[in-house]
Amino acid sequence: MSDSQTLYAADYLITQNDARDIIEQAALVVQGNRIVSVGHRDLLEVMFPDAAQVQLGKAVIMPGLINAHTHVSMSLLRGYSDDKTLMDWLQQDIFPQEAKLSPELVELGARFSMAEMLRTGTTAFFDMYMHERSVFRAADEMGLRGVLGENITQYFPTVSCRDEEAYAELVRSLADEWRNHPRLRQAVLPHAPYTTNPALLRRCRELATETGALFGMHLAETKSETAACLKEHGLRPVPYCESLGLLQADSVFFHCVEVDAHDITILAEHRCCAVHNPASNMKLASGVAPVEAMLRNRVPVALGTDGPASNNAQNMLREMYVAALLHKVDALNPTACPAQLVLDMATRHGSEVLHDPLIGTLEPGMKADFIALSLEEPHMQPVHNIVSNVVYAATGMENKLTVVDGRELYREGRFLCCDYEALCAEMRQAQAWARR
Amino acid sequence: MSDSQTLYAADYLITQNDARDIIEQAALVVQGNRIVSVGHRDLLEVMFPDAAQVQLGKAVIMPGLINAHTHVSMSLLRGYSDDKTLMDWLQQDIFPQEAKLSPELVELGARFSMAEMLRTGTTAFFDMYMHERSVFRAADEMGLRGVLGENITQYFPTVSCRDEEAYAELVRSLADEWRNHPRLRQAVLPHAPYTTNPALLRRCRELATETGALFGMHLAETKSETAACLKEHGLRPVPYCESLGLLQADSVFFHCVEVDAHDITILAEHRCCAVHNPASNMKLASGVAPVEAMLRNRVPVALGTDGPASNNAQNMLREMYVAALLHKVDALNPTACPAQLVLDMATRHGSEVLHDPLIGTLEPGMKADFIALSLEEPHMQPVHNIVSNVVYAATGMENKLTVVDGRELYREGRFLCCDYEALCAEMRQAQAWARR
Repeated sequence: MSDSQTLYAADYLITQNDARDIIEQAALVVQGNRIVSVGHRDLLEVMFPDAAQVQLGKAVIMPGLINAHTHVSMSLLRGYSDDKTLMDWLQQDIFPQEAKLSPELVELGARFSMAEMLRTGTTAFFDMYMHERSVFRAADEMGLRGVLGENITQYFPTVSCRDEEAYAELVRSLADEWRNHPRLRQAVLPHAPYTTNPALLRRCRELATETGALFGMHLAETKSETAACLKEHGLRPVPYCESLGLLQADSVFFHCVEVDAHDITILAEHRCCAVHNPASNMKLASGVAPVEAMLRNRVPVALGTDGPASNNAQNMLREMYVAALLHKVDALNPTACPAQLVLDMATRHGSEVLHDPLIGTLEPGMKADFIALSLEEPHMQPVHNIVSNVVYAATGMENKLTVVDGRELYREGRFLCCDYEALCAEMRQAQAWARR
Repeated sequence: MSDSQTLYAADYLITQNDARDIIEQAALVVQGNRIVSVGHRDLLEVMFPDAAQVQLGKAVIMPGLINAHTHVSMSLLRGYSDDKTLMDWLQQDIFPQEAKLSPELVELGARFSMAEMLRTGTTAFFDMYMHERSVFRAADEMGLRGVLGENITQYFPTVSCRDEEAYAELVRSLADEWRNHPRLRQAVLPHAPYTTNPALLRRCRELATETGALFGMHLAETKSETAACLKEHGLRPVPYCESLGLLQADSVFFHCVEVDAHDITILAEHRCCAVHNPASNMKLASGVAPVEAMLRNRVPVALGTDGPASNNAQNMLREMYVAALLHKVDALNPTACPAQLVLDMATRHGSEVLHDPLIGTLEPGMKADFIALSLEEPHMQPVHNIVSNVVYAATGMENKLTVVDGRELYREGRFLCCDYEALCAEMRQAQAWARR
């Protein structure tokens, strides 16, 4: 590892440390893939006289955002179908397209979303899709951090797995291929209670334990899922999962819209995490997850965009804004989900969901995953409260620097980790694919 | 008026005409302040061989967005106070600051928001504030289109009016000063039922008629307003206004959250317009306006951001996204407020609220108010449906050209109508003002 140090300086720095310190005229020093020091610029310039300097000026440095639930490859289908009911959307438009997916298309979609995430300030993500080996390859090359896993249902053959055995084989081979990767980790990801059977779910749970993968699933997304689960299994989705032994400390559940007080207690008891996807839940009219109740009961709740076919972006700053607004009107309480809490969801709680305690804050010893939002555009001025400007005014496009694991991946209009022009040309060609 | 013509070409053009035509490989020809022709680029290049050409490439040309309710000068207080109840927010934080406002500060705040609006694709706005002469002056110089009016309450002296007579005098003198302005028009704007008395409201209504101004008011914003109106006047807010003769065809009401079926019928009968402010209604937890019910009953509903202290931006593309999401989850119906309807609110219905039939669509003979969003960033690709990308994926920062009345006011990072650097320097100085 290199001895050389780089000092990044900016007008503001949001640490997201336990005290939630905000530093004005700040700097952060990076060596290799770690943060060495965070503090006042004047002091750090004296303490690290040999560090290369990157002066970001009117900007705020903050932890890289963590997109805790998405299906990145669905950028291929952005805007392909909107304003439909969930079942019409899935059955008429999305499933027929997904049946045509190749590993190459999945990789293109993944690279495209990763470019979008780097552009808009996301440094780590939790992905679930088919042909997921393609996503591993793309993330490895492009430099993002992630937990990635193949999505599985009981409807074999899937687009990427002939049968349950083939899925088990895939999980094991992905484990072998990506074990000890500095940035990527596998998860075993059955799709949802309503697309799987108890035997498959138990098998998935065992596979996760066997391979050291995390475990995750869409859960309690809609009222109809709850009704179907009650009818078929006599239990609500959360107790149903508990009855199958799925709730363990490495388990994360996506959506959790339909969780009642008892469900929350169960999730907390087993130290499971939840991921909130406000834009997707609004757009597909799934409902409003009880985010503050989960947090009050010590269920960590991270934030995710869900896939670009139901969002339609991969922009965590927009997601934070939507979350902050949604819970206020839902509770008819303007103090619900304040700015700081939403920022915590997108950073500190994201670190819990990805089970990586070295991301989510900017402190000495942490991994060097950070971004810098420009404060030059009109909507980012004045700065009465920098966290308010980040949550309530920023659009995501202010981001001018994305660093993951100490490596600059995006800087001021340039993607340093891919040939963006070539990627756009490929996407223009793939645009016709959806109509075939 | 100049004879010279300019042809703007781009990959897509959204006309927003009656047929909602979308043109690929499109062009639009401008002469003076009017649109001369809209059509296929190849054809128009032949038809207008002498026109200067502006090739916008991978972009979508569309009507300039209309922000139908805001208080632009409140950019001074962006992020100054959030996450509070409406009354705490107003009484502890906003009102004490507003009591210190000078005409100079109001003008600075207005210029700043106008820069933000031009940057993010808004060409026309409906403003309500104190010291509004400053906003007229700023809009005149910066080149936006607008309906502007001094906000009045019964609590005299206000920051800008000693008494009711002084208000009447101000309205008359603004009428004299700005009569027949090509882009600006006055409105008479009492604040709300709960901050005015019947005599003042009748006086305002007469002043509007006398001076040829439009008439507008915050109305039916919260449940507590309805309760207070019922208690004090024995009527809900809408019938109360009807009883005072305030409902006429030039009247527009901001918010209209608390309107029931009967209220909507009354608004429709009198041909009044409503303005929906989804982000503000969510952030202040006011509730959800019955937008689709109003539209079904032929009440035009435009879209507004409300002021930057309760939004916290002046970004109509973000507002469109929020509107499209909010009504789906509120109705638990993903077909509610589809993309095209939301775009209509921000353009065609905005034209009705501003009572300017020559804005809101791109057609020959219309005023040349248009914008161009770049499709180069990852989140704007692929293009399966350009309206979907505009409503569900765009952030506002894609905008690279803003033309009002035929004049380019913003183009690719440069404000052509103000010294933006000087404006930022002034705002940095004013930042300390709020703490004094």
